Amino acid sequence: MKNQLIAEFIGTYFLYLIIGMCVTPPGSAAFTPIAVGVGLAALVYSCGHLSKAHFNPATTVAYFCAGTHPRSTFLPYIVVIFAGAIAAALTIGVLNPEGLAKVSAIEINTPRVIVAEFAFTFALMWVILNVAIAKGTKGNPFYGLAIGAIVAAGAYAVGNITFAAFNPAVTLSLCFNGFIPWSAFLLYAIVQVFAATVAGYLFRSMKITNPEELPTT
Amino acid sequence: MKNQLIAEFIGTYFLYLIIGMCVTPPGSAAFTPIAVGVGLAALVYSCGHLSKAHFNPATTVAYFCAGTHPRSTFLPYIVVIFAGAIAAALTIGVLNPEGLAKVSAIEINTPRVIVAEFAFTFALMWVILNVAIAKGTKGNPFYGLAIGAIVAAGAYAVGNITFAAFNPAVTLSLCFNGFIPWSAFLLYAIVQVFAATVAGYLFRSMKITNPEELPTT
Amino acid sequence: MKNQLIAEFIGTYFLYLIIGMCVTPPGSAAFTPIAVGVGLAALVYSCGHLSKAHFNPATTVAYFCAGTHPRSTFLPYIVVIFAGAIAAALTIGVLNPEGLAKVSAIEINTPRVIVAEFAFTFALMWVILNVAIAKGTKGNPFYGLAIGAIVAAGAYAVGNITFAAFNPAVTLSLCFNGFIPWSAFLLYAIVQVFAATVAGYLFRSMKITNPEELPTT
Amino acid sequence: MKNQLIAEFIGTYFLYLIIGMCVTPPGSAAFTPIAVGVGLAALVYSCGHLSKAHFNPATTVAYFCAGTHPRSTFLPYIVVIFAGAIAAALTIGVLNPEGLAKVSAIEINTPRVIVAEFAFTFALMWVILNVAIAKGTKGNPFYGLAIGAIVAAGAYAVGNITFAAFNPAVTLSLCFNGFIPWSAFLLYAIVQVFAATVAGYLFRSMKITNPEELPTT
Repeated sequence: MKNQLIAEFIGTYFLYLIIGMCVTPPGSAAFTPIAVGVGLAALVYSCGHLSKAHFNPATTVAYFCAGTHPRSTFLPYIVVIFAGAIAAALTIGVLNPEGLAKVSAIEINTPRVIVAEFAFTFALMWVILNVAIAKGTKGNPFYGLAIGAIVAAGAYAVGNITFAAFNPAVTLSLCFNGFIPWSAFLLYAIVQVFAATVAGYLFRSMKITNPEELPTT
Repeated sequence: MKNQLIAEFIGTYFLYLIIGMCVTPPGSAAFTPIAVGVGLAALVYSCGHLSKAHFNPATTVAYFCAGTHPRSTFLPYIVVIFAGAIAAALTIGVLNPEGLAKVSAIEINTPRVIVAEFAFTFALMWVILNVAIAKGTKGNPFYGLAIGAIVAAGAYAVGNITFAAFNPAVTLSLCFNGFIPWSAFLLYAIVQVFAATVAGYLFRSMKITNPEELPTT
Repeated sequence: MKNQLIAEFIGTYFLYLIIGMCVTPPGSAAFTPIAVGVGLAALVYSCGHLSKAHFNPATTVAYFCAGTHPRSTFLPYIVVIFAGAIAAALTIGVLNPEGLAKVSAIEINTPRVIVAEFAFTFALMWVILNVAIAKGTKGNPFYGLAIGAIVAAGAYAVGNITFAAFNPAVTLSLCFNGFIPWSAFLLYAIVQVFAATVAGYLFRSMKITNPEELPTT
Repeated sequence: MKNQLIAEFIGTYFLYLIIGMCVTPPGSAAFTPIAVGVGLAALVYSCGHLSKAHFNPATTVAYFCAGTHPRSTFLPYIVVIFAGAIAAALTIGVLNPEGLAKVSAIEINTPRVIVAEFAFTFALMWVILNVAIAKGTKGNPFYGLAIGAIVAAGAYAVGNITFAAFNPAVTLSLCFNGFIPWSAFLLYAIVQVFAATVAGYLFRSMKITNPEELPTT
């Protein structure tokens, strides 16, 4: 389990470090979704063989609902993922404090946030489940690319409505660094977890899981 | 068949949701082809093993002409693909009504639309047929990437002439959301289906189909 | 041989159609190398299994010097590749005559054109030979991606010095459409063919060719 | 060993040629990380089978600490990598002397340079080690993509703090061409080598190395 948690910490740390540095002024502006998408792809490829590269509590929930994540490592994964994201948020305070001082939180339109975060968290989970644990894509080498790509596409699609978090740990760090108001954290997290639950159970009901992915415990 | 139709609905829904959100002001401007290309790649990788990831009635036609799509699911695929695209067009009305209110339809230059939509729908079908059902590329993992890439390239090449639809269901939703005039829908759809037919029969005549792809029914 | 020539014609036609449309005003500006890179990757994946996807007379020369291209199809390949590129140049005259009317040729700095076109045509040939016919990368699925990627990188690196042709057929069409002065065509073509010759013989001398690629004739 | 050194020279030469040309005015501005990322991916795919495609003394150090790089080729690799980068820096003097004349070095904030270069050199080494020599990703075709992608992401994340070198040979050439002050070279190199050492020993301690990668000498 130690290697799994090291991989989840490193992956989530760099995922949010890339996100946060790119969106903090002067930042990477319109290139941010590309930077995040390719960065996530690289991190998934470097950690997937160790921990399945969740980097996202919603992913842990989706795998759990799909029936492939063991109960015993559920909580450790969630804790380490949040820790990695917060460590990165703190690092941004060191690397670019002037930029953070200029950040103001986006305005929240509740129904739109619900629709957009539900839609693209569901899409992300649908992609993850189908490229990582489906029988029909077993052994494929494109999983990292597909996961990074759907995040980049979603960020271009709804980034200016929700900041394109699709991930409760990323949402927490975006609140911590001032991009999303703290008052909206629970809304985001509930919608994201709900989308992951729906995706996980839909996937399970389709009976397309690679049997080798089912945990023995 | 249920899993196939779920996959086609989800894939087409998100394909158009990405397209429509990116082109509706304030949108993603010049990054739209990249967002659509990578989003399509991810969706193809997540659905290809379930339904072959058409997301495009022209693709269904091309496979049918190439002799690999069974007659029995021809109509269900077409219906579900159109339904997915329209559902996404309606979602955009919820997520960004102010943006949609600012949209005005492109001007149609009929001969140029015919040449450009024919050329790149043909190119898209040529790529799809060769990466998805050819003997020489059997089992390749690059199919999603290749399909997303040709759409992105085509969108940069002729996007300001035709809006780069290359897909009757996407065209319908682009008309529905006001980007293409309704009066041009039939022109687009006929040209796209014609290009798919030409590509399908050319591919068939080259005798390069993977025999395992030929339907038993 | 018919299928090979169909594939070379289609591939080169769309390669230049994408290039030419993107660089003709209003065009895709700074996104052009991305559009060309991903478009080329898709075309290579769709044609590689049929014709090895040269789309470039320099590639034919490089394979010939490396000892893997049969003498019998050398000339037919060259002719069809030039024909495809010219057909695309003519298509651009239909799709965007107003844009072409605004084009003015780049200024040629002869020593810089020699260095830049030599360097990146060599780099392109080095990548092609190593991903397409080397023993050590036999059966790899990344060849299309690698080829598109080096062209995109080269175009960002030296595009404003040479227009980043790296290909005599593309150079001819760029002259035809007014981007490169006709007086420079021979300079470009000689440098490109020379770079391909150097790359081909260097590769051969390293004795790293996949023996299955050596022609029996 | 000759083929290994040829590959390292060619790869590093073009890696820095792309970097340097893109950042020298007028250059490729905000597209530079994309150009460098895709160019590096192509170069890794073209050289990986010959030399493992280090192109970076820090990579040699990381492999050495992980226990997979033989002592006998340690120094030759380092020398050839620096030579390739310097040859490219000289080429830029030929291709764009006017641009180089306009370059002024970035301002160094020492603690931030340490944090940012440590973080992303570590991330790069973590990705390289896990996609190139780990048991769990043995034989994967995505190594080039993953390596190019993490460099692009890191360049968007911290490019305006450190110029995103992550590589002592690239740092040297960036000093040579005037982008980084000479006085900062040692700082960069020490941080990069330290990050590579940490990554190498962490990787080794996780006992996830593919045993076939361990050198016999």
